[in-house]
Amino acid sequence: MTSPATDAQFSALLDATAGEIDRLLDRLLSSTPAEGEIARPARLIEAMRYATLGGGKRLRPLLTIESAALFGVPRERALMAGCALECVHCYSLVHDDLPAMDDDDMRRGKPTAHRKYDEATAILVGDSLLTFAFDLLSHRETHPDAAVRVALVAGLARSAGLGGMAGGQMLDLAAEGRYDATSLTEEQVVTLDTMKTGALIRFACIAGAILGQAPQSAHDALDRYGHALGQAFQIADDLLDIEGDAATLGKSTGKDAAHGKATLAGNLGVQGARERLAALIAQAERALDPFGANAATLRAAAHFVATRRA
Amino acid sequence: MTSPATDAQFSALLDATAGEIDRLLDRLLSSTPAEGEIARPARLIEAMRYATLGGGKRLRPLLTIESAALFGVPRERALMAGCALECVHCYSLVHDDLPAMDDDDMRRGKPTAHRKYDEATAILVGDSLLTFAFDLLSHRETHPDAAVRVALVAGLARSAGLGGMAGGQMLDLAAEGRYDATSLTEEQVVTLDTMKTGALIRFACIAGAILGQAPQSAHDALDRYGHALGQAFQIADDLLDIEGDAATLGKSTGKDAAHGKATLAGNLGVQGARERLAALIAQAERALDPFGANAATLRAAAHFVATRRA
Repeated sequence: MTSPATDAQFSALLDATAGEIDRLLDRLLSSTPAEGEIARPARLIEAMRYATLGGGKRLRPLLTIESAALFGVPRERALMAGCALECVHCYSLVHDDLPAMDDDDMRRGKPTAHRKYDEATAILVGDSLLTFAFDLLSHRETHPDAAVRVALVAGLARSAGLGGMAGGQMLDLAAEGRYDATSLTEEQVVTLDTMKTGALIRFACIAGAILGQAPQSAHDALDRYGHALGQAFQIADDLLDIEGDAATLGKSTGKDAAHGKATLAGNLGVQGARERLAALIAQAERALDPFGANAATLRAAAHFVATRRA
Repeated sequence: MTSPATDAQFSALLDATAGEIDRLLDRLLSSTPAEGEIARPARLIEAMRYATLGGGKRLRPLLTIESAALFGVPRERALMAGCALECVHCYSLVHDDLPAMDDDDMRRGKPTAHRKYDEATAILVGDSLLTFAFDLLSHRETHPDAAVRVALVAGLARSAGLGGMAGGQMLDLAAEGRYDATSLTEEQVVTLDTMKTGALIRFACIAGAILGQAPQSAHDALDRYGHALGQAFQIADDLLDIEGDAATLGKSTGKDAAHGKATLAGNLGVQGARERLAALIAQAERALDPFGANAATLRAAAHFVATRRA
């Protein structure tokens, strides 16, 4: 087994992938209506582009692309699925930033969509990006086999919907004490994190196996990897909110404590959270053992998640 | 050709279909997580049920079911697709009713979702219902052939997204003069209506042809029917807002004028709008000629749209 790529090499690869995703999203989110569309209203497409282009690490697409590469999936297919995942991720940021939700003014170093445009536009941007993700997955460009495309649709719907990401946001709001006085147990915080952040990251990894029509054992290995990585990502995010620098992050910090958000760092303390993070990263790396040296980039991704500063 | 069902017969059929849709939605929107879901948060599933069950004419599902029946599609498949369409319709109502959008307090004779719960919950209810619709279409229960399921996903995404329903809502808000001073031409109002209301109704009709793997000519006939019916539905809705009774409708009236909404009745006058409505209904009925007596219920549906009082 070769050693994993260095963080610098991984960062360069992540940037290059982000460039590819941006170029494809730029093409897909053009102002020209696609077949079956009547028109793409100028304000809506402009705001959708604002919310998706030029910013974002594109970690989820990278996970799909690198997982798919294990099975020799043509890169252009994985890029399409990656764009779908990124549309869902961006929709969730736009809606979560709304005044009625987390009420954030800055995102990726620029005003949030509802600050740049208005709330109504931001709601429609989120709705349209979510819908567009399913549109992309149904394209022949994503995969010639309809059974593969429909498996991606099913997986995305389950990971993004009421039993995944959207449900996790509901639990997150509830944990702020909006609806009931609450103090979440460690187990409840893990469930919240697994839904809100983990489900989509996990699906990003599984999507590569679906695209590659991988054997069940490889599918399960990527599932374990994605499951651990998703939890690790949220803990790292919580730690950055406590210890990070707002300018580097492009968003405000210290919000979790201010909003009374439930985080594992809150339950375990900063040191306990750091230990949990390390254990999850080790777990993620172990899950990649069956792929040997081929999974070096996915191993580097896990290391990146643990050590990122932005 | 037998004569179309009477309005009374049609209403009874619509009620019976609504009952079937309600029972299936009640089963699908249970609090038990489906495979691949982590949990269904109590507040979210309760609010999703509030926004979908017990109310609504279920016209879109009826159109899918009756179109599908032309091709001998098993009813349980059409009901699944019908539930998906109804989830999208209900999501659009929940989001359109939000304070930042049309700011409505009453819907189907009860408080709107954000009045009953809160804005954050209503946003998540809409997001989750939209996602759930794609989940339902990806089920094997909807159709055993993955190519059919993915065609439904593609069609729903195109009709509900930025180039269809969501885009139409953006045009609708713009036409209120929020972003630019505007006075829409007749052609622009037709585009708005075709996107905002027409696209989903049209797709409801086409979905039957997709489920039935219908020949292209039959698909095109249902497309023409759905296209005319969708426009007719919006004109009838505009006329009800001017002339209807709030208690019968279960929502407030006179809103279009108060909000400066663009409607064809505004461009053509009430009498002109009535004439356009009649012409569209005739067009919808003509499109059904190839199906002869088998399309009696779809003909009755067109008559119902033209004459409904609620």
